[in-house]
Amino acid sequence: MNQKLKANFRKVEPYVPGEQPNLPDMIKLNTNENPYPPSPMVEEVLRQFAPDMLRLYPDPASGMLVDAIAERYGVGNNQVYTGVGSDDVLAIAFLTFFNSGKPILFPDITYSFYDVWAELFQIPYERPLLDENFNLRLEDYTGPNGGVVIANPNAPTGVKQDMDFLRQVIEANPDVVVIIDEAYVDFSGASALPLIKEYDNVVIVQTFSKSRSMAGMRIGYAMAQPELIKAMNDVRYSFNSYPMTRLSVALGVAALQDEDYFQETSAKIIETREKTKRELHRLGFTFEDSMTNFIFATHNRVPAQVIFDQLREKHIFVRHFDAPRIENYLRISIGTNEEMKQFLEAVEEIVGAYQG
Amino acid sequence: MNQKLKANFRKVEPYVPGEQPNLPDMIKLNTNENPYPPSPMVEEVLRQFAPDMLRLYPDPASGMLVDAIAERYGVGNNQVYTGVGSDDVLAIAFLTFFNSGKPILFPDITYSFYDVWAELFQIPYERPLLDENFNLRLEDYTGPNGGVVIANPNAPTGVKQDMDFLRQVIEANPDVVVIIDEAYVDFSGASALPLIKEYDNVVIVQTFSKSRSMAGMRIGYAMAQPELIKAMNDVRYSFNSYPMTRLSVALGVAALQDEDYFQETSAKIIETREKTKRELHRLGFTFEDSMTNFIFATHNRVPAQVIFDQLREKHIFVRHFDAPRIENYLRISIGTNEEMKQFLEAVEEIVGAYQG
Repeated sequence: MNQKLKANFRKVEPYVPGEQPNLPDMIKLNTNENPYPPSPMVEEVLRQFAPDMLRLYPDPASGMLVDAIAERYGVGNNQVYTGVGSDDVLAIAFLTFFNSGKPILFPDITYSFYDVWAELFQIPYERPLLDENFNLRLEDYTGPNGGVVIANPNAPTGVKQDMDFLRQVIEANPDVVVIIDEAYVDFSGASALPLIKEYDNVVIVQTFSKSRSMAGMRIGYAMAQPELIKAMNDVRYSFNSYPMTRLSVALGVAALQDEDYFQETSAKIIETREKTKRELHRLGFTFEDSMTNFIFATHNRVPAQVIFDQLREKHIFVRHFDAPRIENYLRISIGTNEEMKQFLEAVEEIVGAYQG
Repeated sequence: MNQKLKANFRKVEPYVPGEQPNLPDMIKLNTNENPYPPSPMVEEVLRQFAPDMLRLYPDPASGMLVDAIAERYGVGNNQVYTGVGSDDVLAIAFLTFFNSGKPILFPDITYSFYDVWAELFQIPYERPLLDENFNLRLEDYTGPNGGVVIANPNAPTGVKQDMDFLRQVIEANPDVVVIIDEAYVDFSGASALPLIKEYDNVVIVQTFSKSRSMAGMRIGYAMAQPELIKAMNDVRYSFNSYPMTRLSVALGVAALQDEDYFQETSAKIIETREKTKRELHRLGFTFEDSMTNFIFATHNRVPAQVIFDQLREKHIFVRHFDAPRIENYLRISIGTNEEMKQFLEAVEEIVGAYQG
């Protein structure tokens, strides 16, 4: 290829495709997906949806979905923004709010796309170190900055900061936006959502990908005071009219209408997680108290890479990050009870056989 | 709201929502949607799709859809990029290819998002004037530039440049990428797709929103030589892993498998368009020869705004752009024969009654 032509291509880090195993007998505990199907109401809408509607562009405002989210969470429909998964919502929030020229702040160990979006939009950033228990240190987030992003509970650590900590960060930063990324909050107890009533500088981001079993439909949303939501909508509308499919909207609404199913499956996952924690402790693992649908654990004797590789041979897939400070950890998504039983049996065998 | 907080929000042009009429008796000829439903095969897949799959993230590469497009168009699957509608595909192409610092070129009258994406990504641009017949002038596209974008057929004019013209532009610009946006090409005869075999600097962009009756599912795609497609994928993967829903992929594949239906509905629309042209001429309209699923017309006596407003009162919606050089034109999407009959009757009445 003409090298002058190529010289104008955008330079990016070469892509390393994530493992997408697709084996009939596999146990997939590597991407924090929900082991349970979406609500039966989702199937009902899928079966009844009039295909003729697909010829029409979607509502740019995704009004039906916005209304359903607003109703579910008891906020105004001018306090809800929807996007193509929380990745899209977070990227738009970065683009909308982080324009001060000062560095935004998020911890060294957190969701892997924050630095990527900052670089994409030329937003400077700093990454204060988590403490030795994977907690954020308040003093790192109180100096001058261009905004703060806190995944809470954090990924891949599973650790949750309490409401008091969040309040202190928000109050220390009245002139910048604090984004609380609550992708995993439904497995952790209380959301920080009530804070949007008190503070005009906080944005709560959530997703249908985990607790609502709909990673495949790409639905994320943000909740905040109306002026913040309007700013995000203005930015998005300015360059993209129709981001969400008609089926994402219709199926998203259906999922929200089945609160019982949502509560039930979330409770099952939490129960399985707690049981898995006890077993992992018994097998010699240590970990902070996970408040998510995964456990981020290190073994007291067997290297993470060894366990990862040997699980893989047994067609059990977990996640291993080859990154500073966490290279000896595994992130284990919570599957069904049966899947976790098989996983734990496999781990027991691997750990028992390891000579080191 | 705290003004210091607000000062850091991204400044954008205030959003003017497009008209989204939703009346039971309306005739909607304002957004170039297809009047016919998607292929019956799309409904079949919709009815059979296993809802449990929705709990899993989509394939980041949309492999099944990429393969189906590659097969349909006789190109390699490393020559196809898919995105969330052609808007998303075009935006990624801008971000990937237009990094020379030199201005990119597109005409003054063309698709309204090109300048928006250029501004979003801080790409300088120039907009040479179309000639009096809404044609591009070759000499405007042969000087130094950072890339060229040609909607072909063009929107909202409906005018198509011939293959010879495209070749000359592509050959005059070997060191930059030339994007041919073929959103409407299926209503116009030949695509410029064969040019991707000859030239390493051309990207063809198409969409499922018009000829495949699936605007509601947001499916666009680009075809080019493998190195160009790889560059687009690298950029997109670098900040967004899962842009397309599982249902967009599944229904997109289904639509592609029904070539007969596609040919049949496209032919019907072309036939209705040609009939509508004759009638519009008879009623005193003039227009360039439209090669799209819309006609961009001006009346020899009655102002466009008058016709627009009076049609609107009759619940018939067309599009009027309040922009220089085209403020006296209407863009009329081609509906069914019955819809166009009602539209033409209404226009005849309006034009007949107009005193000026």
